[in-house]
Amino acid sequence: MQGLMMDYPLTIDRILEHANRIYPRKKISTKLPDGSMHRYTYANLYGRVKRLANVLDKLGVEPGDRVGTFAWNNYQHLELYYAIPGSGAVIHTLNIRLFPEQLAYVVNHAEDKVVFIDATLLPLFEKVADEIESVQHYVLFNTDAGVETKLPNVSLYEDLMAEASDDYNWRVTDENTAMGLCYTSGTTGDPKGTLYSHRSMYLHTMGANQANVLALTERDVVLPVVPMFHAMAWGLPYSCAFAGAEMILPGPHLQPAALAEMIAEEKVTVPAGVPTIWMMLYQELQENPRDVSHIRVLTVGGAAMPRALIESYEKELDVSVLHAWGMTELSPIGTVSQLQTHHLALPEHEQWDVKERQGYPVAGVEMRIVNEAGEEVSWDGITMGEVQVRGPWIAKGYYKLDASPDHFTPDGWFRTGDVATISEDAYMHITDRTKDLVKSGGEWISSVVLENGLMAHPKVMEAAVIAIPDERWGERPMAVAVLVPEAGAVTTEELNSYLAAKFAKFWLPDKIAFVDEIPKTSVGKFDKKVLRHRYAEGQLG
Amino acid sequence: MQGLMMDYPLTIDRILEHANRIYPRKKISTKLPDGSMHRYTYANLYGRVKRLANVLDKLGVEPGDRVGTFAWNNYQHLELYYAIPGSGAVIHTLNIRLFPEQLAYVVNHAEDKVVFIDATLLPLFEKVADEIESVQHYVLFNTDAGVETKLPNVSLYEDLMAEASDDYNWRVTDENTAMGLCYTSGTTGDPKGTLYSHRSMYLHTMGANQANVLALTERDVVLPVVPMFHAMAWGLPYSCAFAGAEMILPGPHLQPAALAEMIAEEKVTVPAGVPTIWMMLYQELQENPRDVSHIRVLTVGGAAMPRALIESYEKELDVSVLHAWGMTELSPIGTVSQLQTHHLALPEHEQWDVKERQGYPVAGVEMRIVNEAGEEVSWDGITMGEVQVRGPWIAKGYYKLDASPDHFTPDGWFRTGDVATISEDAYMHITDRTKDLVKSGGEWISSVVLENGLMAHPKVMEAAVIAIPDERWGERPMAVAVLVPEAGAVTTEELNSYLAAKFAKFWLPDKIAFVDEIPKTSVGKFDKKVLRHRYAEGQLG
Repeated sequence: MQGLMMDYPLTIDRILEHANRIYPRKKISTKLPDGSMHRYTYANLYGRVKRLANVLDKLGVEPGDRVGTFAWNNYQHLELYYAIPGSGAVIHTLNIRLFPEQLAYVVNHAEDKVVFIDATLLPLFEKVADEIESVQHYVLFNTDAGVETKLPNVSLYEDLMAEASDDYNWRVTDENTAMGLCYTSGTTGDPKGTLYSHRSMYLHTMGANQANVLALTERDVVLPVVPMFHAMAWGLPYSCAFAGAEMILPGPHLQPAALAEMIAEEKVTVPAGVPTIWMMLYQELQENPRDVSHIRVLTVGGAAMPRALIESYEKELDVSVLHAWGMTELSPIGTVSQLQTHHLALPEHEQWDVKERQGYPVAGVEMRIVNEAGEEVSWDGITMGEVQVRGPWIAKGYYKLDASPDHFTPDGWFRTGDVATISEDAYMHITDRTKDLVKSGGEWISSVVLENGLMAHPKVMEAAVIAIPDERWGERPMAVAVLVPEAGAVTTEELNSYLAAKFAKFWLPDKIAFVDEIPKTSVGKFDKKVLRHRYAEGQLG
Repeated sequence: MQGLMMDYPLTIDRILEHANRIYPRKKISTKLPDGSMHRYTYANLYGRVKRLANVLDKLGVEPGDRVGTFAWNNYQHLELYYAIPGSGAVIHTLNIRLFPEQLAYVVNHAEDKVVFIDATLLPLFEKVADEIESVQHYVLFNTDAGVETKLPNVSLYEDLMAEASDDYNWRVTDENTAMGLCYTSGTTGDPKGTLYSHRSMYLHTMGANQANVLALTERDVVLPVVPMFHAMAWGLPYSCAFAGAEMILPGPHLQPAALAEMIAEEKVTVPAGVPTIWMMLYQELQENPRDVSHIRVLTVGGAAMPRALIESYEKELDVSVLHAWGMTELSPIGTVSQLQTHHLALPEHEQWDVKERQGYPVAGVEMRIVNEAGEEVSWDGITMGEVQVRGPWIAKGYYKLDASPDHFTPDGWFRTGDVATISEDAYMHITDRTKDLVKSGGEWISSVVLENGLMAHPKVMEAAVIAIPDERWGERPMAVAVLVPEAGAVTTEELNSYLAAKFAKFWLPDKIAFVDEIPKTSVGKFDKKVLRHRYAEGQLG
């Protein structure tokens, strides 16, 4: 028997309607390229989104078409976040940090029909202009009629907006309609696209706004430093509107001093970004103290926040840290780490141990950890397993790719590729990526844990660990280390005897190669693919 | 184009799975009939719910069958809240306060197959036993083998539980499956049943847990005084579990002293109930002060909370009040009233003016107010209209009734029957029920507002206003008043000249009948149906 409740589709336009009805006067402020602040309200946003939806219609964008955006965090990008899905099309956020060949690949793979470009990023996009196949129109903003570009069929955003009506009927009635497309910049293989639906993003929005999660309310002033061209800016463009929170959009001004100024002057309550940004902000605040007392919670994700940095913020700056974990395929929020009642009596350093972990699954996300044999392993804080998740805002496949068992299990869970332990009280701690694990004699050795162990040695500046083939054990760990300048001669034995105090004997690397530099990816991570290649070629001795 | 996100049905069992996984040690405490506390955890609840689902199977309950519950707020009732929907059946919560004929009507109309009865309420149910047609089994709890009853086919809850396995596979895969049935005890006509779906209740749960709404977290200790036999106890049995909040279930102990003791001893953070309860609790706390400092927010709904009482709690007891409005057909939460940023600078008395209103629609609920002609009227805080709502947790019809335009508009909104104004900043203030409005010459006169005006007169103890037919104006207001004992002789003219200072001339009642008593409904409201009948019969002179 079916219930007798309204067939009410969960669509993104409902979020904007709510913001316009309940919070019309709440402000959205953007730091423009010239450093001045552009300010308007949710009511203004609402009118302009309807105008923009008419612009899309006029450009020939049809339901299901992909529309690219190549922009910083600003009000125009926010307008696109609502107008493209509202018109029935799919917003494809282009990551400005992709290598040119990847950028061209994703535009062509998505077959974007129109691309909206923040003119401050025009040179970056022009690099790939000749390789783009599908785009019929480019629309530029943050520029004027004097702009010169080699791109064909270019219009100016404000010219199109000026001509358009602000009367528009939202188009989507089926909540499973695609609304967004976001490619992950995997270090292996081509980027893969996650295709969000209206339903999944609406549910993610409501999930994020639960009091146990981001807990946004109309009292908040949110500063999304996390870019809108990556993982939907953690869903904040939608969560803020549904909660009535004010937004501060930093545009291209991501320098620590600029961020510190925005936080102080705009009385930001929720800054949201990656650990690197907060590391730099911390240093900035050390040198030039500012008022950060309005911060309710410094939200951090995208990579593990170093424990020492959490401690510095909480102890020295009295800023509470919310450590979160997610992935593009999770819309992106999967877990959050904040203290629970039973942690409140712990000594401070143990509380930071808790916060260093990536946290518990938010209501709506189910999680398990699974070993090599595909068996679920226990939540004991020690046993490692691959993190697998399922839930209403998690991908079931990639755009225009056949579902592969590498990514999805036969029983319908998404394989994150992260390896973690989960404590008895449900806090996940990521220890590695599956592809970087060393599988030695049926046991898993975490490359990351071993690297941290090596880097704790006073003579080691950087260390990366890779698996090398071994006849007897299948794989064995090998380390590649960069020594500190004044280190002098160091041997594998010296470092291994140091490690032996902390690790089981079978964890110790069979070999440590000393090099001048460890190759890194575009986002600054160790490039283990290159290291494995060099090892195979015999370049690591 | 469809998105590529998981087809993940939103079902109630997911909420319990989450509580068991993330908050297994959080406690649920029940004050038993004998006054002692029964305590167990979400992990215990989980195991017992699975056991109970097997019991239901054994009793022959099949997917879609209705299973009645007739019980106070206690752990057994909570187990039924999860086990019945988890097994694919429909929990039909029977209101213990219904008149016997209404109780028999709803059991027969729903065709309940099994009814679970809290034995402390057995005499109440036995009154209607002979009129019940569909029930094949009765199951009693809070009693032992010595119980005597005239009910046929009776088993004891714990006997059945002891025999059942705690291994069970949840049955529901279609989120639109019915999960709950709740009848409204309308003052006109037969009770009407709202049939909730898994999806609607899951979404209501997530909606309620948003930080702008109830904001429950695992830090909370919730005391649902609002009965589980009415409007799904505002969804708290599900919201608490999804948030990991602890629950204190008061059983039959609803006396003010008992509630005060529970609040103080259990360190309750969120007591939830109707204004009458909080009025009595306030008096109790005046006489016997207790520690209520743990209360984060006193949640009130079901009727308008008098402004003076809000003020007393906030000013004298330092207890923050959350005023909410809902209806059975809304699952039930529709609006909440709490201060927003722009109210914080207001003087205290204006803040209470805000809190006296029923508040703004929660994210997920859309609202409009509509006049006699079916046109939406503006949110100016003055113009009255019928409140109409739509959203994912709102009814689209009643169980086994054809949808009527009296309840649902042609464009798909639910007609609440409440009349309200909405302020420019989106705060609804209910002024009347549509059926009690006086429609005079095309204008609406609120009976409730007029009653309050009359009752403000020092000589008037109670006053009810009804519409009487009028040839020229269609309807005109008539008042029925009870005077205070020492009032002496009072005339219609005297009271009308008092009202004239506050109301437009056309609002003044044409006639005021002075009576000894105003008839009331079972829940203590003025019974205007009876008054209208008496007027028609010429009994009001």
